[in-house]
Amino acid sequence: MLNRVAFLFYEEINMQSFNFSAGPAMLPADVMQQAQAEFLDWQGCGSSVMEISHRSKEFIAVAEKAEQDLRDLLAVPDNYKVLFMHGGGRGGFASVPMNLSQPEQTVAHLVTGSWSKGAVTESAKYANTHIIGTDVLIDGQKTLSKQTEWEWPEGDIAYLHYCPNETVEGFQIAQPPTHKGINLVADMSSNILSKPININDYACIYAGAQKNIGPSGLAIVIVHEDLLGQAQTCTPSIMNYAITAEYGSMYNTPPTYAWYLSGLVFQWLKDQGGLAAIEQINQQKAQTLYQLIDQSSFYQNNIAPQHRSIMNVVFNLPNSELETLFVKEAAAAGLHALKGHRSVGGIRASIYNAMPLAGVETLAQFMLAFEQSKG
Amino acid sequence: MLNRVAFLFYEEINMQSFNFSAGPAMLPADVMQQAQAEFLDWQGCGSSVMEISHRSKEFIAVAEKAEQDLRDLLAVPDNYKVLFMHGGGRGGFASVPMNLSQPEQTVAHLVTGSWSKGAVTESAKYANTHIIGTDVLIDGQKTLSKQTEWEWPEGDIAYLHYCPNETVEGFQIAQPPTHKGINLVADMSSNILSKPININDYACIYAGAQKNIGPSGLAIVIVHEDLLGQAQTCTPSIMNYAITAEYGSMYNTPPTYAWYLSGLVFQWLKDQGGLAAIEQINQQKAQTLYQLIDQSSFYQNNIAPQHRSIMNVVFNLPNSELETLFVKEAAAAGLHALKGHRSVGGIRASIYNAMPLAGVETLAQFMLAFEQSKG
Repeated sequence: MLNRVAFLFYEEINMQSFNFSAGPAMLPADVMQQAQAEFLDWQGCGSSVMEISHRSKEFIAVAEKAEQDLRDLLAVPDNYKVLFMHGGGRGGFASVPMNLSQPEQTVAHLVTGSWSKGAVTESAKYANTHIIGTDVLIDGQKTLSKQTEWEWPEGDIAYLHYCPNETVEGFQIAQPPTHKGINLVADMSSNILSKPININDYACIYAGAQKNIGPSGLAIVIVHEDLLGQAQTCTPSIMNYAITAEYGSMYNTPPTYAWYLSGLVFQWLKDQGGLAAIEQINQQKAQTLYQLIDQSSFYQNNIAPQHRSIMNVVFNLPNSELETLFVKEAAAAGLHALKGHRSVGGIRASIYNAMPLAGVETLAQFMLAFEQSKG
Repeated sequence: MLNRVAFLFYEEINMQSFNFSAGPAMLPADVMQQAQAEFLDWQGCGSSVMEISHRSKEFIAVAEKAEQDLRDLLAVPDNYKVLFMHGGGRGGFASVPMNLSQPEQTVAHLVTGSWSKGAVTESAKYANTHIIGTDVLIDGQKTLSKQTEWEWPEGDIAYLHYCPNETVEGFQIAQPPTHKGINLVADMSSNILSKPININDYACIYAGAQKNIGPSGLAIVIVHEDLLGQAQTCTPSIMNYAITAEYGSMYNTPPTYAWYLSGLVFQWLKDQGGLAAIEQINQQKAQTLYQLIDQSSFYQNNIAPQHRSIMNVVFNLPNSELETLFVKEAAAAGLHALKGHRSVGGIRASIYNAMPLAGVETLAQFMLAFEQSKG
C-alpha cells in the first residue's frame, strides 16, 4: 500500500502520460499532430502520403527535403552519401561488413553492450572480426577499457566499429575513438541527432529510425562516397550502399511513410534550434535523473559518469520486487514503458529528443515520491 | 480543347477522386479512417501504436491477430510459417535464393516481365539460375511459352520461381505452373490476397506490402517449414527465414506501424467476405475495363485474355501525345496516377483490392468520354 502523501501525489501527476519506450519510441507531439491532420488528405491531393508513388514528384520533394534537412542538422559534407534504407539497425550489422570490408580483411570492434555484441556476431560471417576493447568494471564503476590497452590485430584493418550509445545498458562513448586514420563506423541507432557530431570523424554512420528519427522499418546510413563500390559479391542489392546511392534510395520501394515522418522530425529539430539546442535539453533531462540517482541510496547506477547515456537512463532499486512495483505504480501514474530490457532487468527511462523536459521532471517527482514511500 | 459534352462530363465526375497508383497504392478508405481516428491515442494508451514497443503485450496482440487473420484469409496450413519482414519484394529476390538454394544448386525461372526479370538478376549471385520459359508473342497476342517447350536445366533444381502478376506489363499467370513435384516459389507482390489460392501448391510465397497489403517497407513471406534452416552462410540474419520464424518476426524491430495497418487491411478483407468475395469484385472491375478496351479501336491491349492482369490494367492510345493528354485530363477529373510505368509507357490502371468498383466505373466513363472527344 502506498502511504497517503504519495498516493495523493500520484493522483496529481496522473494528468498527462509520458512514454519512456526504448523503441519504437515516442515521436514529437507536434509531428504526430501534423501527421494525423494530413493523414487522409496530404497537401490536398486526396490521398495519404503513404498511398502515392515513391517516384511521384510530390514524394520526391518530401524525400529530398528530408535528406537536405538531415544533412543540414548533422552538417554532412557533400562527399558523404545519405541513404534511406530498409532493415533497421540489425540490417547494418550485416550491410556494414558486406559493403565496407572484404572476406580476407580484418575488422576491429569495441564491445560495450548488447548492440555492439550483436554487431560482432553478424560481422563474423563476412570478415575476420576482432574485439579489441570492451567495457570493464573499475572500482565498482563500469567504464571503457583504456585505449592504450586495446588489442589491435595484425594486418589490414578495414574499420573500427563501435556503438556510441548502448540502449540496453545505458552506456555511452561520448567521443569518437579515432585511431591512426583507421576508418571509424558507428551504430548510432539510439543517439543519432541527440547532439552535434563531426561527420568527418566517421567513415560510416548507421541508425535504425525507431528511437530518435521516426517509426521502425527505416534505417539511415551516412557513408563516405570513396568507400562505395567495393561490396562483397553476396551483398543483396537492397543492402548495397553503392546501388542505393546510385538510385537515390529508390532502387526498391522505400518505406515512404517512415521517410515522410522522419522528414517531419528533421524539420521539428530545426525548429527547436538544431542539434546544439537539443543537446542542451538532452543534457538537462539526463542530469536531472542522474543527480536524483546520485543523491539517493535507493536508486543505483554504476556507470562511470562520463559513460552514462544521455538517451537511456538505467537504474536499479534495492530488489526486483520493488522494481516490479515501481514499473506498475509508474504506469498507473501515467509514466509508461519504464521496465528495463529483459536481458538486464531494472528500470530504464529512454529520454530521446522527443521526450519533453516535463516528462523527465514528472518522472523525477515520481521517483522521489516512490522512494519516500518505499525507501 | 475538349468538346462541350465531355467537358460537362469531366465537371460532373470531378466530385470524388480515385488513386490508381501501382504502389505504394491506395488502402481501403475504412482502414485509413480508423487509423487516423486512433493515430494519437491507440486503444486509450495515450500513444500511437507506432510509439510502443514491439515486445509490449499490446503490440504482440496486434501482431498475432494480423498473422492469424492472414492465415485465415489464405487458409495457410500449420506447417507453413508466416513471416513479417523488412525489404519489400526486391528483398525477396535475394532472400529466396539465399534461404532456399545452395550455391551449387540450380534454380529455374519463368520471365514474363520486369519483376520476374529482376528476380533472375539477383538470384544469379546465389545459385545457378536458368530461365526456362518466357512470355511470347503469338498471333499478335502476348502469352506464356508452352509448358511442354520449357527448357529445363540438368541436375538438381531447388525450385521454380515465377511472378503470377507482372505489375509493369499487366501480365498474369493465373494458375500455378506446377511441375513434377518441383518446389514452386511465387513473387505475389501485386496480386496476393486478390483471390483464393491453394497454399499447398507453393513452397514459398513472398510479397512486398505496398500494393495489396499495406504501406511500403513491409514484406510478407509464407514458407513451408521443412525448407527452413538451410540458408547460405552469407545470409544476413534479418533476411534469414529460420531466424525470423524462430523469433516470431521480431529478431529485429519489425516495421510495426506497417504491420498494424496490414492487420487492419486483413480485418477489412474478412469483413468484405474474404478472398472469394473480393475476387468477384476484382473480376468485375477488371472486366469492366477490358470489355471497354475490346469494344474500342481507340484503346489497345495486346495481352491474351487469360493472361490479362486483374490487378494492373495496361493499355495504349493511338499515340503518346494522346496518352499524355489522357493522363493530364484524367487527373483534372480526379482520376490520379494513371501513367504507365516509365519503362513501357502507355496507361496503367492499378485496381487492387482497395479500389472500389465506383472508381473503375468512373474511369470507364472517363475513357468513353475521352474517346468520344478525341477518337
